[in-house]
Amino acid sequence: MSAPTTADLLALDRAAQDLLFRAARTANTFTDEPVTDAQVAAIHDLIRYGPTAYNGQPLRVLLLRTAAARERLLPYVSSSNRAKTASAPLVAVLAADVDFHERLPELYPHRPQARDWLGDRPARAEQARFSATLQIGYLLVGVRAAGLAAGPMAGFDAAGVTREFFPDGRYEALLLLNVGHPGRDAWEQRLPRLSSEEVVLTL
Amino acid sequence: MSAPTTADLLALDRAAQDLLFRAARTANTFTDEPVTDAQVAAIHDLIRYGPTAYNGQPLRVLLLRTAAARERLLPYVSSSNRAKTASAPLVAVLAADVDFHERLPELYPHRPQARDWLGDRPARAEQARFSATLQIGYLLVGVRAAGLAAGPMAGFDAAGVTREFFPDGRYEALLLLNVGHPGRDAWEQRLPRLSSEEVVLTL
Repeated sequence: MSAPTTADLLALDRAAQDLLFRAARTANTFTDEPVTDAQVAAIHDLIRYGPTAYNGQPLRVLLLRTAAARERLLPYVSSSNRAKTASAPLVAVLAADVDFHERLPELYPHRPQARDWLGDRPARAEQARFSATLQIGYLLVGVRAAGLAAGPMAGFDAAGVTREFFPDGRYEALLLLNVGHPGRDAWEQRLPRLSSEEVVLTL
Repeated sequence: MSAPTTADLLALDRAAQDLLFRAARTANTFTDEPVTDAQVAAIHDLIRYGPTAYNGQPLRVLLLRTAAARERLLPYVSSSNRAKTASAPLVAVLAADVDFHERLPELYPHRPQARDWLGDRPARAEQARFSATLQIGYLLVGVRAAGLAAGPMAGFDAAGVTREFFPDGRYEALLLLNVGHPGRDAWEQRLPRLSSEEVVLTL
């Protein structure tokens, strides 16, 4: 028996804690094993219950399945991310639907007028980015819940990817995500994390 | 035995899926049972392993423990959120550290020059908000992992809270969070969620 730690204060069991956070790592290499559409749907079926402002759920996930689609992405990826983006079994563009408010009468039925509060596009785009980014947090946890490794990449030309894949301006690219089973030498040593004493302030 | 569903495609067990997502709800009322600093530290000790850009970890969590601190918050909270903010056992301001780059030589040691790439404050603030929002996604999952209910509130004057609690401009308030055990009539019926067919696009 190991000594009790903060992990014992959680309701979530240790194996799940490890799967989702403690043992999970950002993968830089992947095996050839594919990631299926059924796996992606299963991940979304789980994480769609995470909360968003107005229940607006603005996250959209564009899977680049064809070689042609992936080729279109590569010029916008930073050089240090290009090799893994070219070799990952699945690459996705994670984006925010700036016009998420159109669905609010259905998604937020007790206040259907919320759609009209969000008429101003710049303010709405900020809301869309915020809630979609929260959902990306849930999604990264969900990828790990599926037993897969996630490789989020912020090093890319987001405006270029938005123009390339979403030319009508409705979606804004926020993050690229490689998904698969970790390959050889998939990661370096774990980088340091801040302690709760450094992060949690009290008044 | 129930029929197999997408839940069976996940490595995470059903009880954990329910705890974190399927059965978890945004609470609007809470019991009097306190949330301890040890519980908050345990949640952070779990979710701090979630990935952030440059491993920058810009999320800061300000706990409003005193009555005076909570009183200072209430004028900035929308009228529909005021009663629950006044009664929740724990209220936190979730914020982004715009000067997170100062720690990068320690947190991202293989590229210490990243600190200098982030010299421009507006671009850095956007990075800080993005990664801190990802971390808020992890944090909401972590609150649930502790067996607690989270009540995130986007309906507040973020600029006002930033001025009130972070007058030196280093931190930007992003979200308010009530935490506790769900009270009586803590939630209405679950709001509808988008299907993966609506969210996942393929090229």
